[in-house]
Amino acid sequence: MSAPQRFVVDARAVDGDRATLEGDQARQIATVLRLAAGDRVILVQGGTDLEVRLDEVAPAAVRGTVTERRPSAAEPGVRITLALPLLRGDRGEEVIEAVTQLGVARIVPFTSERSVARELSGAKRARWERIARESAETARRGSVPEIAELADWRGLLGALEPPVVVAWERETTRPLRNAVPLGTRAVSIVVGPEGGLTEDEVALARARGAVTTSLGPRNLRSETAAVAAVARLIAMLEARP
Amino acid sequence: MSAPQRFVVDARAVDGDRATLEGDQARQIATVLRLAAGDRVILVQGGTDLEVRLDEVAPAAVRGTVTERRPSAAEPGVRITLALPLLRGDRGEEVIEAVTQLGVARIVPFTSERSVARELSGAKRARWERIARESAETARRGSVPEIAELADWRGLLGALEPPVVVAWERETTRPLRNAVPLGTRAVSIVVGPEGGLTEDEVALARARGAVTTSLGPRNLRSETAAVAAVARLIAMLEARP
Repeated sequence: MSAPQRFVVDARAVDGDRATLEGDQARQIATVLRLAAGDRVILVQGGTDLEVRLDEVAPAAVRGTVTERRPSAAEPGVRITLALPLLRGDRGEEVIEAVTQLGVARIVPFTSERSVARELSGAKRARWERIARESAETARRGSVPEIAELADWRGLLGALEPPVVVAWERETTRPLRNAVPLGTRAVSIVVGPEGGLTEDEVALARARGAVTTSLGPRNLRSETAAVAAVARLIAMLEARP
Repeated sequence: MSAPQRFVVDARAVDGDRATLEGDQARQIATVLRLAAGDRVILVQGGTDLEVRLDEVAPAAVRGTVTERRPSAAEPGVRITLALPLLRGDRGEEVIEAVTQLGVARIVPFTSERSVARELSGAKRARWERIARESAETARRGSVPEIAELADWRGLLGALEPPVVVAWERETTRPLRNAVPLGTRAVSIVVGPEGGLTEDEVALARARGAVTTSLGPRNLRSETAAVAAVARLIAMLEARP
């Protein structure tokens, strides 16, 4: 028996113990998963799992009854923000999928001096939001990472919650475990674009209180650096008391 | 000034202080990078960087003189083997690229009971080997990860150097940092296929001395689990005295 399918829903989907799904989610339940009255699904809303017994299933609307509410067990207790440079092609999508599974809370796309990709189209943003929602559902998370507005370097530094840690190739002495204060429950990690960050950009970040960190002696592509940094930060911070 | 381009070469390319490149590498130097006599490249051979001053550049053959030899600074001092399930489509390629950058020593592709993809064609293996070589060059590593023969579950357990750690969704209590003995300099990490490992497969692995580990409470896709596990293991083991 496999676990019930999870759907992230907004506040309108649930009213007391009555749940109603429409649109894509109703279609998926009725025509893809072919669930029926009596089957169960999990609706996920703001960090809470609602177990729902289906009462009526049709492609246009699915209705059910909430039978249990519990905190989403897989939602991390730490808040990681990833500042992700715009990358060429579809490379950003793979990163969003992976870091969402790993437990990131917020993704802030940015451009900086050496960025090659410069625009985040409405279609691309919509695709990112869909990937984040689906990846959060698959990972059994209790919320979907927010994808913030595209920022330039100066705007990014204003938009990130401190402490801010910048992964920089020329930082060679401060490993990640020394860059994040013990007991930290929230941190923002910045990964540079394909061409790297400039000295001026790093100087500005430091002037605003950021610290630079080394992810190790090997030269990582931006997407590998992003996934590795988030994986390591979540493991470090979840493990700390 | 950017760092000299790196090329992983085999033993035939260097004879005393004379270096000769042919084939794709010569073509790339002559027609893509457009280097000339007097320019420098790094040849990488078995953990050593050889700095080479070019003497003659032509698309068919490039000749040069070795001016310095030094250990490849970015090659990890720990030996990580990744047992990677065959994945559908091109998903394996992204993993090979990322884990090579991160510093994996060996990749063992395998199939198990719930594997969907079952065959590793000669063309796919050749593509994987090219990706591993190019990623190692970009990451400035001193060697290219070996890609072992495709194994089934039983063969895999025989092919992995101990200690063997199996990332398993139903293991909930042993985090990665407790699965790997302190001071370990070599470890094999196994990630399950898209459908997961069976109880019987895990029992067999345990009978052969493997331990299971949890990568955290969230449900990760195989490719995310592979990259996250390698990133965390390398960071853990490189940091230990």
